[in-house]
Amino acid sequence: MTKSYQALAAYCRETATINSLSALASWDQETYMPAGGADLRGSQKALLARLAHERAVGPRMLELLSACESDPGVKADPVLAASVKETRRDIDLARKLPSDLVAEIAGTSPKAVAAWREARAKNDFGAFAPWLERMVALARRKAECYGTPAGGEPYDALLNEYEPGATAREIDAAFKPLRTRLADFIKDLSRGAAPDESPLNVTISPERQHAFGLFVLRAIGFDLDRGRLDVTTHPFCDGIGPGDTRLTTRYRESRFTDALYGTLHEAGHGLYEQGLPKSERFGEPLADAISLGIHESQSRLWENWVGRSAEFWSWVMPHARTMLGDSFGSPTPEAMARAVNTAKPSFIRVEADEATYNMHVMVRFELERALFARQIEARDVPGLWNKAYQNYLGITPPDDAKGCMQDVHWSSGLLGYFPTYTLGNLYMAQFMEAAQRDMPGLKGGIARGEFAPLLAWLREKIHVHGRRFRASDLCQRVTGAPLSADPFMRYLEAKLRPVYGRA
Amino acid sequence: MTKSYQALAAYCRETATINSLSALASWDQETYMPAGGADLRGSQKALLARLAHERAVGPRMLELLSACESDPGVKADPVLAASVKETRRDIDLARKLPSDLVAEIAGTSPKAVAAWREARAKNDFGAFAPWLERMVALARRKAECYGTPAGGEPYDALLNEYEPGATAREIDAAFKPLRTRLADFIKDLSRGAAPDESPLNVTISPERQHAFGLFVLRAIGFDLDRGRLDVTTHPFCDGIGPGDTRLTTRYRESRFTDALYGTLHEAGHGLYEQGLPKSERFGEPLADAISLGIHESQSRLWENWVGRSAEFWSWVMPHARTMLGDSFGSPTPEAMARAVNTAKPSFIRVEADEATYNMHVMVRFELERALFARQIEARDVPGLWNKAYQNYLGITPPDDAKGCMQDVHWSSGLLGYFPTYTLGNLYMAQFMEAAQRDMPGLKGGIARGEFAPLLAWLREKIHVHGRRFRASDLCQRVTGAPLSADPFMRYLEAKLRPVYGRA
Repeated sequence: MTKSYQALAAYCRETATINSLSALASWDQETYMPAGGADLRGSQKALLARLAHERAVGPRMLELLSACESDPGVKADPVLAASVKETRRDIDLARKLPSDLVAEIAGTSPKAVAAWREARAKNDFGAFAPWLERMVALARRKAECYGTPAGGEPYDALLNEYEPGATAREIDAAFKPLRTRLADFIKDLSRGAAPDESPLNVTISPERQHAFGLFVLRAIGFDLDRGRLDVTTHPFCDGIGPGDTRLTTRYRESRFTDALYGTLHEAGHGLYEQGLPKSERFGEPLADAISLGIHESQSRLWENWVGRSAEFWSWVMPHARTMLGDSFGSPTPEAMARAVNTAKPSFIRVEADEATYNMHVMVRFELERALFARQIEARDVPGLWNKAYQNYLGITPPDDAKGCMQDVHWSSGLLGYFPTYTLGNLYMAQFMEAAQRDMPGLKGGIARGEFAPLLAWLREKIHVHGRRFRASDLCQRVTGAPLSADPFMRYLEAKLRPVYGRA
Repeated sequence: MTKSYQALAAYCRETATINSLSALASWDQETYMPAGGADLRGSQKALLARLAHERAVGPRMLELLSACESDPGVKADPVLAASVKETRRDIDLARKLPSDLVAEIAGTSPKAVAAWREARAKNDFGAFAPWLERMVALARRKAECYGTPAGGEPYDALLNEYEPGATAREIDAAFKPLRTRLADFIKDLSRGAAPDESPLNVTISPERQHAFGLFVLRAIGFDLDRGRLDVTTHPFCDGIGPGDTRLTTRYRESRFTDALYGTLHEAGHGLYEQGLPKSERFGEPLADAISLGIHESQSRLWENWVGRSAEFWSWVMPHARTMLGDSFGSPTPEAMARAVNTAKPSFIRVEADEATYNMHVMVRFELERALFARQIEARDVPGLWNKAYQNYLGITPPDDAKGCMQDVHWSSGLLGYFPTYTLGNLYMAQFMEAAQRDMPGLKGGIARGEFAPLLAWLREKIHVHGRRFRASDLCQRVTGAPLSADPFMRYLEAKLRPVYGRA
């Protein structure tokens, strides 16, 4: 490591420490903060966002970065060179935003989230609408500051924050045929026999579910000495910093698989966070996730590829019988694996099956894109949302709480984020085809509770690199091919056709 | 409000927002932070302490403060003038410390607390000793920076942080005769008949205790929409900021009164925090507690004056019977009030009765004072501690976990803090004599669950003023007399003599 890089890294580590406080404040906001703390939380987050932004765009940072860029020692080291290049990208983006706007977005979101929470509980879109308008207006201002890339559209600027280099046009081009393929596939499944869901319709206490969730977390390799699991209305993973990665879930007594798969999903994010080299490189791009698409690939992988497999149920069944108690009964692993792969249109994205899930994402993507093209306004969202659900899934939400107010993202200021969920599904399937080529005994091992080989493979191929590679480069490197929807469709078909007797 | 003051207040509010993040980080550290997060927590707290300190001593702050000091509009307003005077005091103190030292203390304490926690669990003073040495060395450096006041001693500089203007010599002069009076009083009680403690020896689940604790909190006026109650090994109250005041307690199944009185104690701190005018004046001395002695007067008041009274038990008994369940039995309020006023030497300060409690404080005060006079070193603490307990209370701790490692304070860097606990007891008794003069029906009301008049009196007389008055001035103002140990001794004697049949 060169002296110039060392100085840059030390400076960035301090900025990351500021950001880690924002992460802690966000976690607390969703878990334990009393309602009365929302205003202070807004001030805290605005202040932290301003401090971090001022450091990022200030003269000292530019000086340190330029010193690295002109240092032959950095140029000669491909890892350091990649890190400096990514830092430059971040700084150039940050410099396009005024600190006031950054602080305003951070400071408004806790209040918008509080309003969303209340409006959703009361199913009152009218009460949420002004906050949605405000968050959309702030995101539009951000998109204006970033500027529309040549040949692109305003939405691209936001997308670029979460999935560097992605554009709305490309995503649209990938989503349209996928939508058709999925629609055909869902229609075909509907001609088969739906699996028996009765193994899921059992009542399990939150305490038992929690103990079971912790057991599964430990088994797949999530380090609970460097993390935790709490309860929130909207599950998430918060990688606060080195040694501190927090997951949340929610327990529904009448459907224990909600929490199980929610926990596995967030654990996938958490394993990625714990696998990034944060102790050594906190604050450097080399300790950051590549993109939200790649992040999501990790969560969907543990939730779905692992957790909804017959092999997983074969391993976990005796433990489930002991830990979930008598009411769990004694379904066979095969029956459970069928039940958890029921595919049918539903209202709530986070509870959707793998076949219909991406339709939920596409609805959001299209609405967001239209919002940023100023073709629609916040007030138009509920009507268009319901129409899109009817078009894509053949169902109309009974109310806005189960419709356009179900997600926390927009009130949090996360606009342009949703498409990464579908990208994550595609990356996941493509990564796992590669993993199975590398480890032919992978599935068999899972049936014996051997998760370490898969985690080691993910660590080596993906986690340990941080942002050394762009998502598309990583995909090529790990799988030998550019991203495609084919592995995902192959994966879905191989898994769901037999469940529906359409093999 | 003048323009100059407005500008100062806005600046201070932002500094307070930084400090509120430290408070959140501290709360999280004690409640939910995974063990692996301790190093990051140290970096976070060091950074926040540095940022807050740099703001406090920087040129902008001095400029804003000077503008207020020379503004005739400020001088003409006694409230603003008091606020500016207190701000000047804070800044002059802060300027004596280098930011590096402030950051080092804040950054070391989370690691020292983690080491203390582990060492205490293993009863291994040897493992804690290097951390204690380090925290003592840091506090000594701080005392050196502050400088020893003329005619004073190094300890005064630390004491002054918690109890402005107090000196070790004055405290010693007050403590010595109090010690004799208490020793005589305890001896006299020991000649009487100890109360029947059997009503306390019942097993109550943590869940029932928690629900009961929340019920009592609500009844006395603690606002749970602007606060919460969690579980920690060492109970505390953290006034994070406007709208967010957090209490913690701990549940022992075999002695439910530990948590009840712990909760009432912290609630007393919490009611003070919630009564300070933080929404309007956050960051100004007018929204801060006067001193830790005054703070402690509020906690001891609700814990002991209210909570250990026959009137309190008369009100709460039917609720306790319902909420604590069958195992609670059906003691009379009088029997409970006697049982919770058992006075006998014991090892743990936070569980000590009101008569022996101050002896625990005096042991700590004398050790701290000797540490800062460099008459002793950290390694001498266990032996001297045990000797002092034998001298003052006639008992020797069986081990260091129940001896010199019982408190979190020293590992947190809180040296010079303990004497304020006894000051709090004295202030409490003197305030309550005044309160009873002002409200002759106070005790009768408590027997009917009417806590609002007392809270309103405390709000008006104490809470609402923030730091407008010094502790001694407030005492004179509220009680018409300077602080004295007489009301406390009168209170103790009137309460405990009948319990022991020595009336």
